[in-house]
Amino acid sequence: MESAHRGKQSIVFTQQPAILSYASVAGKKESEGPLKATFDVASKDTAFGQKSWEKAETQMQKTAMEIALQKADLKEDQLDAAFVGDLLNQCVGSSFSMRNKSIPTFGLYGACSTMAESLLLAGMAVNGGYARKVMALTSSHFASSERQYRFPLGYGGQRTPTAQWTVTGAGAVILSQSGKGPYLRSATVGSIVDAGIKDANNMGAAMAPAAYETIRAHFDDLGLGPEDYDLIVTGDLGKLGHQVVAELFEKDGVKLGQRYQDCGMMIYDLEKQDVHCGGSGCGCSASVLCGHLLGRMRRGQLNRLLFCGTGALLSPLSTQQGESVPAVCHAVSIFTERS
Amino acid sequence: MESAHRGKQSIVFTQQPAILSYASVAGKKESEGPLKATFDVASKDTAFGQKSWEKAETQMQKTAMEIALQKADLKEDQLDAAFVGDLLNQCVGSSFSMRNKSIPTFGLYGACSTMAESLLLAGMAVNGGYARKVMALTSSHFASSERQYRFPLGYGGQRTPTAQWTVTGAGAVILSQSGKGPYLRSATVGSIVDAGIKDANNMGAAMAPAAYETIRAHFDDLGLGPEDYDLIVTGDLGKLGHQVVAELFEKDGVKLGQRYQDCGMMIYDLEKQDVHCGGSGCGCSASVLCGHLLGRMRRGQLNRLLFCGTGALLSPLSTQQGESVPAVCHAVSIFTERS
Repeated sequence: MESAHRGKQSIVFTQQPAILSYASVAGKKESEGPLKATFDVASKDTAFGQKSWEKAETQMQKTAMEIALQKADLKEDQLDAAFVGDLLNQCVGSSFSMRNKSIPTFGLYGACSTMAESLLLAGMAVNGGYARKVMALTSSHFASSERQYRFPLGYGGQRTPTAQWTVTGAGAVILSQSGKGPYLRSATVGSIVDAGIKDANNMGAAMAPAAYETIRAHFDDLGLGPEDYDLIVTGDLGKLGHQVVAELFEKDGVKLGQRYQDCGMMIYDLEKQDVHCGGSGCGCSASVLCGHLLGRMRRGQLNRLLFCGTGALLSPLSTQQGESVPAVCHAVSIFTERS
Repeated sequence: MESAHRGKQSIVFTQQPAILSYASVAGKKESEGPLKATFDVASKDTAFGQKSWEKAETQMQKTAMEIALQKADLKEDQLDAAFVGDLLNQCVGSSFSMRNKSIPTFGLYGACSTMAESLLLAGMAVNGGYARKVMALTSSHFASSERQYRFPLGYGGQRTPTAQWTVTGAGAVILSQSGKGPYLRSATVGSIVDAGIKDANNMGAAMAPAAYETIRAHFDDLGLGPEDYDLIVTGDLGKLGHQVVAELFEKDGVKLGQRYQDCGMMIYDLEKQDVHCGGSGCGCSASVLCGHLLGRMRRGQLNRLLFCGTGALLSPLSTQQGESVPAVCHAVSIFTERS
């Protein structure tokens, strides 16, 4: 068998798994932003009819999963595996969305990089013949994240200028060995990079070095450059982190220019929506990928995408104990045509 | 390429990846139990020289990783990937043990099933040619878990009769495409089963149905039975959960008998060590696998093992919100000889 391993940390999907379907769910603030027309569900009710923010998050995941299954004309029991995760303590959002569904399930924790991590592993599962139909699923919720990582909303804490706004959203992708695509072509697995940032409200700066290192490794391992992509997106670096990544590449003599964007800057109107540096959370890159980006690919407006999930690996306790914020970035390349 | 997928939720490792090395680290109570001679490190200092229980957990992981690398005569940068996870909020134990190591890292959350989940995914990565040398690593710590899931130790809360004792321990396995083994042969991916148990202190009962369903699926998918194994172990069901699994199989007319054991009952002396139903935590199955069990396999005393990691997917918040406790079980079969 031809080895799929390339260079330091990359893999090539020799069978180029197909994206059979995808679905996105978004909350109120996201439904008022520039991508409002691209979500399958744009809810005015941020509680999604539930009694707690955590249950709302599970509900979003269930909805994304149902719509993705429907679009692929599949039933739950036709999924051979699911890769799922979220930001809540012990990933309960995902555990409760998958319970008693008879779908073999891998729980992941990649912080806000989970959409890329789950897509990468789902790609490995399909590409390697371990499973035929596989789902990647993740979510985040502004209110459950605030009480999880920072303060309960009722506390009314001030937000710092470098803060980001956790996206209320979910995304699901179903992969298969065949289908009309787009298709996964390659991926780069991130290592954990700690640049020593101790401000838990400056996650963009904490994550940018990890994003730089993974994209750099992707280019080096696979002999590629920015010109091989129409669009390179990071998950949720926000305005500040986006700028840091662009600058790190400039030091290498590489101009990313307009080709490089960030989902956290795309999902909100940064001028009008008072989100400071932009969106964050697993649901940010998930809902942008599973709406806007894959939509543009299906319509032929975007052909070569490098999707880079970015995650800040902190907990309230690690911050209290004076730890810095390590980060990770996983990248998956998606093409409208098989090579 | 021959498909590795079998039946409802199982896979066959067509290349049968080799366990190149393994290492275990254990705390004080574990070092006083019946398996004391089987750990690579049996520490009298439960803080492992660190200032917090969480940092102690990271230290245990680092030590297990270092010893496993040493035994395999490998350097960190020779690992193509690591699959890691723990029980702490946002898996910070693992994130901090892997930071700035330049090892491509997948974060997992499988609760106490993480050793099996990580081994399974590491097996898929090696078997599929995505990576050459891959590590599976996990841990738990009694004191960090108590404050994470229940009460700070200083509170002095009473333990219920069905409670279990979180193992202070870590385990690491390094897989490779070739080596003297033992070897991974097949695996069954668990789905999330919720039997409706709401008592967060009765995790054995919550996890037993998940263990039963995964082992049942393993037999059905692969045309196997208990007689195909010398030993079937669950991770941390304890005395009560172990009995429930045995009874569920008896209802099917299958007698598991002495062939079926539980790591949570093996690691402590249940009569003398005041651990109620037995050990629990990711570190329970990890330190028993990476010491006692793989040690017996290397010495030829045990040849056919079905290793079943079991996890209760709760969080303090889900319990407070009145949720029941879903559970998952992943199984990996390990043989001293390649078939």
